[in-house]
Amino acid sequence: MLELHGQHLIGRATSAESDDTFQAANPATGESLPTVFHEATPGEIDRALTLAAEAFVAFRQTSPEDRARFLDACADEVEALGEQLIETTMAETGHPEPRCLGERGRATGQARMFAELAREGSWVDARIDLPQPDRQPLPKPDVRSLMFPVGPVVVFGASNFPLAISVFGADTVSAFAAGCPVVVKAHPAHPATCELVARAILAAAEKTGMPEGVFSLVHGRTNAVGMGLVQHPETTAAAFTGSLRGGRALYDAANARPVPIPFYAEMGSVNPIFVLPGALKERGNEIASGYIQSLTLGVGQFCTNPGLVFGLESEELNTFVSGAAEGARGASPATMLHAGIHHAFTEGVNAMQHRSGLTLVGQSSTPADEAKSEAACHVFETDAEGLRNNPELFEEVFGPVSTVVKCPATSDLEEFAGQLEGSLTASIHGTEEDLASHRGLIDILEKKVGRLIFNGYPTGIEVCHAMHHGGPYPATAHSYFTSIGTRCIYRFVRPLCFQGWPQSQLPAELRDDNPRGIQRLVDGEYTRDPIAR
Amino acid sequence: MLELHGQHLIGRATSAESDDTFQAANPATGESLPTVFHEATPGEIDRALTLAAEAFVAFRQTSPEDRARFLDACADEVEALGEQLIETTMAETGHPEPRCLGERGRATGQARMFAELAREGSWVDARIDLPQPDRQPLPKPDVRSLMFPVGPVVVFGASNFPLAISVFGADTVSAFAAGCPVVVKAHPAHPATCELVARAILAAAEKTGMPEGVFSLVHGRTNAVGMGLVQHPETTAAAFTGSLRGGRALYDAANARPVPIPFYAEMGSVNPIFVLPGALKERGNEIASGYIQSLTLGVGQFCTNPGLVFGLESEELNTFVSGAAEGARGASPATMLHAGIHHAFTEGVNAMQHRSGLTLVGQSSTPADEAKSEAACHVFETDAEGLRNNPELFEEVFGPVSTVVKCPATSDLEEFAGQLEGSLTASIHGTEEDLASHRGLIDILEKKVGRLIFNGYPTGIEVCHAMHHGGPYPATAHSYFTSIGTRCIYRFVRPLCFQGWPQSQLPAELRDDNPRGIQRLVDGEYTRDPIAR
Repeated sequence: MLELHGQHLIGRATSAESDDTFQAANPATGESLPTVFHEATPGEIDRALTLAAEAFVAFRQTSPEDRARFLDACADEVEALGEQLIETTMAETGHPEPRCLGERGRATGQARMFAELAREGSWVDARIDLPQPDRQPLPKPDVRSLMFPVGPVVVFGASNFPLAISVFGADTVSAFAAGCPVVVKAHPAHPATCELVARAILAAAEKTGMPEGVFSLVHGRTNAVGMGLVQHPETTAAAFTGSLRGGRALYDAANARPVPIPFYAEMGSVNPIFVLPGALKERGNEIASGYIQSLTLGVGQFCTNPGLVFGLESEELNTFVSGAAEGARGASPATMLHAGIHHAFTEGVNAMQHRSGLTLVGQSSTPADEAKSEAACHVFETDAEGLRNNPELFEEVFGPVSTVVKCPATSDLEEFAGQLEGSLTASIHGTEEDLASHRGLIDILEKKVGRLIFNGYPTGIEVCHAMHHGGPYPATAHSYFTSIGTRCIYRFVRPLCFQGWPQSQLPAELRDDNPRGIQRLVDGEYTRDPIAR
Repeated sequence: MLELHGQHLIGRATSAESDDTFQAANPATGESLPTVFHEATPGEIDRALTLAAEAFVAFRQTSPEDRARFLDACADEVEALGEQLIETTMAETGHPEPRCLGERGRATGQARMFAELAREGSWVDARIDLPQPDRQPLPKPDVRSLMFPVGPVVVFGASNFPLAISVFGADTVSAFAAGCPVVVKAHPAHPATCELVARAILAAAEKTGMPEGVFSLVHGRTNAVGMGLVQHPETTAAAFTGSLRGGRALYDAANARPVPIPFYAEMGSVNPIFVLPGALKERGNEIASGYIQSLTLGVGQFCTNPGLVFGLESEELNTFVSGAAEGARGASPATMLHAGIHHAFTEGVNAMQHRSGLTLVGQSSTPADEAKSEAACHVFETDAEGLRNNPELFEEVFGPVSTVVKCPATSDLEEFAGQLEGSLTASIHGTEEDLASHRGLIDILEKKVGRLIFNGYPTGIEVCHAMHHGGPYPATAHSYFTSIGTRCIYRFVRPLCFQGWPQSQLPAELRDDNPRGIQRLVDGEYTRDPIAR
C-alpha cells in the first residue's frame, strides 16, 4: 500500500507550495476523502514544464524499443497498484468494481498497444524521394521526412474515465510513444486515483531509465492551473476531454498565445440514433432495450451517450417508445461521478420536464437517492414540432437522459440531421434496404459526425487502428484528430524533413538500409525494402 | 484571347455588385492596368459559399478518376491560356518570362501530381479492423475508416507565386483531389492573372461535368472580404500564404467563430543558414555564391529566403563574407511584386542601416530604380553582440536582404538557434564531420524548423511526397500540416469511421474486395490484398 501524500509530482520531486488545498468527496456518501491536495502554483507549473522541455531532448532520442519498454513498464506498474487503485477509484468516482477493473484493462491494453505501435514503427510515415542529380533543368534533391515529436504535452484528465482517459489514458501513452514528455493536470474529482497512477508511471520511468521530467503531475481545481499549463511557453500541445465550456475556454487561450499551440479538445456530443422503418418492424423491442442499455452505461456519463433518437411516426415507433419507457423504468438509479455533474444533470432534467411539447414517457421506477448523487434514467418523447420549438434539445445533457423524436416524414429526419451540431457518432438502425433508401440522410450525417454506426450503439468504443473518436466541432476542436485509437498519436507529432542529409546522420527510419524494416513511401511506392544504390 | 471582365466568378455566373473598384498596377512602370475589379459584397461571398456547400454533396461523390480528369483538364486549360497568361502575369508581378513559364510548369505539374495521387488512392489512409463476434467479454465490432473531405475550402492566393501558390496552387488542387469545393480570394496585386486562371478552371469543370459551385473566385483588397470568407458558416477550412500580420488576423477570426475552423497559414520565416568550419575551409567561396543566388532568387520574395547566416569567427568566414559582398554587388536590382512590398523592403533596409553594430558589407552596385519598384540586394554583417543588441534581426524582412552573424563559439550558434522563431527551414553547410560534431546545434534546430537542408539552399522547393513546407509557428499556424507536397491534402480531410456498416453501402476504399486496389491497414498489417471471408 502506498501512502497518499497529496503533493504534486514534478519530475522526481514532490512539491506542495500552496496553502490553497482541497479534498475530493465520495459521491456515493457525500463525505470528504482524507487526502489533502494542493493547488499548483505558477512556480510549480513552471518547474514541471521546464523539466519536461529539458527531458524532451533525451526522451525523443530514446529508441522506439526504449519507449515501448517504458510503456509496458507503466502498464505493469499500474496493474501492480492492485486493489488499492480499484478501491481508490471506486471511492472517488462512484464507479462499481467491475467498471473499474474493466477500465484499468482498457488503459493498460491501450498502453501496450502503443508500445507495439512504437516497436513496429511504420506509424512515422517515413517518406523518401530519391535524388536525380542529372535532372533537367534542375537537379532533384534527396528529400526524406518522418513524423517527429512536438515537445512537452499537457494532458487534462477527464472525469468520466478516471483510468482510461485520465493520467494514463490514450493522451499520455500516445504522447510517450511519439517521444513527447507529458505534464498531466489531475482531475480534481479523482486526485488520489491520479496520484497513484502517476506514481506508477514515475516508477516505470525510473526502472526503464527515462529522463527526469518525462512525466509530471500537478493538481488544481481552479481555472488558473489549467490556464497556466496551456499558456506556458514550453507547452507545445495539449489534450483535453471534458465539457464544451471548459474546453472552449482553454482552446481560446491556446489560440491566443503569442505562439499558438494546438489544443485537442474532445467536448462530448449528442450522438443521435436513427431508427428506420425496416428495423422497427423487425426488432423494435430489441433496439429499445439496446438503446436503454447504451443510455445508462456508466450512468449515462459516456462521451458517446445517445441523447436523441429519431424515428418515423408509426405503430412500430409507438411500440419502440413503450419498450424504451419500460427499459427506463427498470433501470436502477446510480451514483454519478461527482456532486457537480449530478447537480447539472438534475437541473437539465428539470428544465426538460417544464418544456412544452416534451413528455416524460419513462423514468427509473426506483427513486434516485439525492444524497448519493444518484441519477435516474429519463426518457422523453416529442414530435417534430416539439423539437423545432425546443432547439435546446440539440444540446447534450450529461447523464442518462434522452429524447425520442417522432417525425412525420423522412424529410424531417433530414432536416433535423442537418440541424445537429458536430457529433462524435450517429447510429442508424435499419435493414440494408433502409440504408439504401435513406441515402439523403446518410449524406447529411457524413458531414456531421466522425463515426457512423449501423445496427449498433455508440457507447463501448473499440480501441483499434481504424477507430475515430472525433468529429466536427464541438465534438472535437479539430476534426482531423482522434483521441482514441492508434491514429491519436498524430496529435503530438509534425513532419520533419531532411534534404541532402548524409546517411550517417539521418534518423534510422530514413536511412537507405531501413534498419527498422518499417514501411516507407519511396518515390511514391509503399515498400519495406531497403534502398539499393 | 479572353477579354477580361474584372467580375467575380461565382459558380457559372459573373457578378459585380459593388461600386467599390480597384485596378492593379504594373510594378515595373507604376502604371495602372486597364481592367477594373470589384470588391466582393457580403451577398456575393454568401452566394459563392452557398453554391460550394451545395456542390459538396455531388463533388465528394465523384470518383477519384473523375476528380483526376478534372485536375488534368484544369492543367490543360491553364496551359491553353498560352501567352496571354504569361504576359498578364509578367505585367502584374514584374516577374520575367522564364520565371512565369517555370512557375506555370510547377503549377500544372503539381495539379497532375494530385490527379495521380487521387487515381492511386492509397492516400485516404483506409483502415479496417475486422470483427470478432465471439470475442470475450465483448464482441469486437467491424470498424473501418478513411479520410473524408471536410467541405468548402477558402483559399487565399499568395502574392509571390501568382501561378504556383495562388488560384491554381497546391491549396486548390489538393482540395479538389480530396473532394472539397474551393472559393478563392484573388490576390489584389494580380487579379487579372487570377481571372484568367479561374476561367480556365471553370472551363475544365464544365468539360468534365463537375457541379456548379465546385469553384468560385471573388476579388477584394479590403480585410472585409477575407474576414467574410473566413467567417462564413459554410466555410470548413481555409488556406493562406502571406504575411504574419495578415495571416494572424484571419487565424484569430477563424478560431473565434462560434464553430471554429482550421486556418492553415504559411506566414514566412527567416530560414537561417549555418556555415560550419569544415565547409568554410573546403568551399567557402562556392557557398557564398550559392547563398547570394538563393537570396536574390525571385528578388528575395520566396517564403524560404535566407535572412540570417551564422558562422564561427575565422579568416575563412571573413573570406566568405567578402565573397557574399562581392556577389551582392554583382546582383542586379529587380522589380518587386508590387509597390507595397517594395516600400516595406525599403523601410526594412533603411532601419537596418541605422542599427548600431550592423555593417552593410555589400549591395548591388547598379542602383535600384525606385520608379520601377526595384530592390537592390543588401548583405549586412554583425557579431554575436550585435545580434543580441538587435533582436529585430530575428524577424523576416521580405526581399533580398540578409545578415551574416560572426560568432565566437559554437555555444553562440546554439544560443542563437535557440532564439530563432519557428522557421520553414534551416540549412547547414558542413562536412559530415562538422555535422557529427555539432549534434547540439542540430538538436536545437530540429525543434525550430520543418526542413533541415545539408549543403544546399532553402529556396527552390521540390514538389514531392516527402517534402514538408511547414514549421513551428509563425512559419505555419499548425506545424502538422504542409502547404507543398502531397501531404498537403491532409489539410482538407478528416477521418470518417464506419462501424458495422454493410458492404453494399461502404465507400469502395473500405470494401472487403478492395476494388480500387489501394494499400490499407487491415488488422494492423499494410496490404493491398482483398479480404477473403
